[in-house]
Amino acid sequence: MPQKIPIVESILSANDRLAEENRARIEAAGVFAINIMASPGAGKTSLIEQTVLALHGKLRIGMINGDIATSLDADRAAAAGATALQVNTGGECHLDAVMLRDALARLDLGAIDLLIVENVGNLVCPAGFALGTHRNVLVASIPEGDDKPYKYPGMYRGVQAVVINKIDLLPYADFRMDIFKKGIEALNPGVVQFPLSCRSGEGLEAWLDWLAGQVNTATSKDGMEVNK
Amino acid sequence: MPQKIPIVESILSANDRLAEENRARIEAAGVFAINIMASPGAGKTSLIEQTVLALHGKLRIGMINGDIATSLDADRAAAAGATALQVNTGGECHLDAVMLRDALARLDLGAIDLLIVENVGNLVCPAGFALGTHRNVLVASIPEGDDKPYKYPGMYRGVQAVVINKIDLLPYADFRMDIFKKGIEALNPGVVQFPLSCRSGEGLEAWLDWLAGQVNTATSKDGMEVNK
Repeated sequence: MPQKIPIVESILSANDRLAEENRARIEAAGVFAINIMASPGAGKTSLIEQTVLALHGKLRIGMINGDIATSLDADRAAAAGATALQVNTGGECHLDAVMLRDALARLDLGAIDLLIVENVGNLVCPAGFALGTHRNVLVASIPEGDDKPYKYPGMYRGVQAVVINKIDLLPYADFRMDIFKKGIEALNPGVVQFPLSCRSGEGLEAWLDWLAGQVNTATSKDGMEVNK
Repeated sequence: MPQKIPIVESILSANDRLAEENRARIEAAGVFAINIMASPGAGKTSLIEQTVLALHGKLRIGMINGDIATSLDADRAAAAGATALQVNTGGECHLDAVMLRDALARLDLGAIDLLIVENVGNLVCPAGFALGTHRNVLVASIPEGDDKPYKYPGMYRGVQAVVINKIDLLPYADFRMDIFKKGIEALNPGVVQFPLSCRSGEGLEAWLDWLAGQVNTATSKDGMEVNK
């Protein structure tokens, strides 16, 4: 069976066009948007919770959550103070630009400064589908192991920031930080990294400063600077 | 964009036919086969390592590893004593029956009793593709969180055993075992569960007994009993 068939190429190219349209729509509203990806259970929702709580009063945050079957994550973000919207992917393993377009139509972009998109928990498929956000952020986590950059290179290559969550578990896991960081560096030289723990709060400040800086820089210019 | 298009239906039905052929081939050789699925980093390879080491001398074990980009996992299984074979999926997010068929052609089935297939680390896509193995085994892990059955129901529904790995991290994670088990029970009533730690060795015995029992029961009969 061929790996690539014409219909797949065509779907990806249509996705890219729609992602551009999404970005234009987001920027026209003066909003900065990030796409958060990770394995199941790495801590995407915990990071979003902590981010929304910490930036409350400084930034108005909207959150679009892609989930296969529940609204548990959107509920948590809403409880933390975000304008949260649930996209049920109906079993699909990733968000795509069509799903984001439909979600954007239901969200009041004029009421937010920062849009956080939480992708489906998956280290493979989401990497292949641009959404139209300004930054891709990967949440890695200590218990997943230090070999993940080597085993999921597509994901590690395509992001502009790596959050390394659950550092409170470092004493209890066989995780070699040097091996892990060497893998990241080989795939994505110089990518900004934030070792932190959503549970203990350690390291969160650096992440929050970076994120708020990205939003402020982007929205204070005439045009937005886009890495991808 | 429609969720289901005819070409997808056709691919799935072709996959099912090939899975049946794989199973016939595996059974003709008197081999029992399991398909291990999990999130990235839940501990599939660690479980396989421990299993191969513990059953060495009792069962001859073959291992087929589906990985996107490396042979790290197959190397670990081989070092533990298995006849290991690497399938590089070339970026694909799951194994399918075609990949298993091609791998089986390269493996000496006459030289093994138990075939362990390690799927790609992914809680979504592998659930949709039968391979032709006798049992599907899910490796969950404590740091992933207790909400996973609720968020990835397709995976939890389609397995005949759930290994709950990394119980040594229970004191350091906010994991409610009762909530987790309630989710499993709702989706897959009565499914056999093995809380254990590949790191400390706690709980491994029950898993090994079950697995060896499955192999012996199946291979001592005229025909093999197949759950799925």
